[in-house]
Amino acid sequence: MAESLDDGLRETGLDSEVVFKGRLLEVRRDRVRLPNGAETTREYIAHPGAVVVIPVLSTGKYLLERQFRYPLKQVFLELPAGKVDPGEDLLAAAQRELKEETGYSAREWQRLGRIHPCIGYSNEGIEVFLARKLEQTAPQQLDANEFIDVVTLSSAEMMKAIRSGELTDGKTLSALYLAELFRHA
Amino acid sequence: MAESLDDGLRETGLDSEVVFKGRLLEVRRDRVRLPNGAETTREYIAHPGAVVVIPVLSTGKYLLERQFRYPLKQVFLELPAGKVDPGEDLLAAAQRELKEETGYSAREWQRLGRIHPCIGYSNEGIEVFLARKLEQTAPQQLDANEFIDVVTLSSAEMMKAIRSGELTDGKTLSALYLAELFRHA
Repeated sequence: MAESLDDGLRETGLDSEVVFKGRLLEVRRDRVRLPNGAETTREYIAHPGAVVVIPVLSTGKYLLERQFRYPLKQVFLELPAGKVDPGEDLLAAAQRELKEETGYSAREWQRLGRIHPCIGYSNEGIEVFLARKLEQTAPQQLDANEFIDVVTLSSAEMMKAIRSGELTDGKTLSALYLAELFRHA
Repeated sequence: MAESLDDGLRETGLDSEVVFKGRLLEVRRDRVRLPNGAETTREYIAHPGAVVVIPVLSTGKYLLERQFRYPLKQVFLELPAGKVDPGEDLLAAAQRELKEETGYSAREWQRLGRIHPCIGYSNEGIEVFLARKLEQTAPQQLDANEFIDVVTLSSAEMMKAIRSGELTDGKTLSALYLAELFRHA
């Protein structure tokens, strides 16, 4: 689908301002020109980018986490993930997050692709990595505000958790789907 | 996994304030008690909830959309989706969004589950529906600020778009994975 086909869809930024800056979130509001020439505003989260890791143990089981997510006030079953530090390489970020959150290191890393979790109101992109040849090399090194339980699930247990509605985290579902598609590629 | 196992993960809200309210986004900041007794703040988007629809034509092809998403300044290939109106039933919202964005109505609807696209900083939940027995019953009825091209893709074309990195939208990937898992259930 050629770029020119999309000309009727494109919006052009005219100016941009930070309308909220907190400890975690930065919200921007841009004035934009719509494809029909009209002007409007678009509000969105300015996000530094993130990584998510699918860690597969030598047993074939997956390493996941249970973490309380305050916005939804419930514990989620999710893959290890985290924000990229300023200037940090994406693979280095994935290796760091896996180690900090689970204590595991991996000798084999494969990039599966990129996902955009929230295109309506955030510019977040998440790089997806598959990690194999895992070894527990250190204890968890969590931030002061982080509380994470590490769990291992077989593929069947993970599928069951998805079907039953226990596993609903978007980045985890998207990443597992990528892994599934690349397995059969 | 029993609820009590999660006691070491739970955070308790102490108070909550709206720190930004724009045309689209509402950001809240809550003061919370952490599992270790310490206090911190959590910032998140307060979202009304959304629906996403997987519309399957009688040919087996899927109905998708091409839409420019300003936060990422690119056109995305994505399933029809939208926010739930206040007090609106989720199925009714799915039927309305499909009709408004594509002009199609469906005679067969199946709920596949719920996904949470952005658990780190939004309380958004998206209800996933499969829509079959489709008929084009009306023209698109877009909002003044909406510009959407409707496209049809075969399953093979969709898989190719995912593998090539053209289809990266999280809600679309998550919803398609749910559909895939329920097909083999």
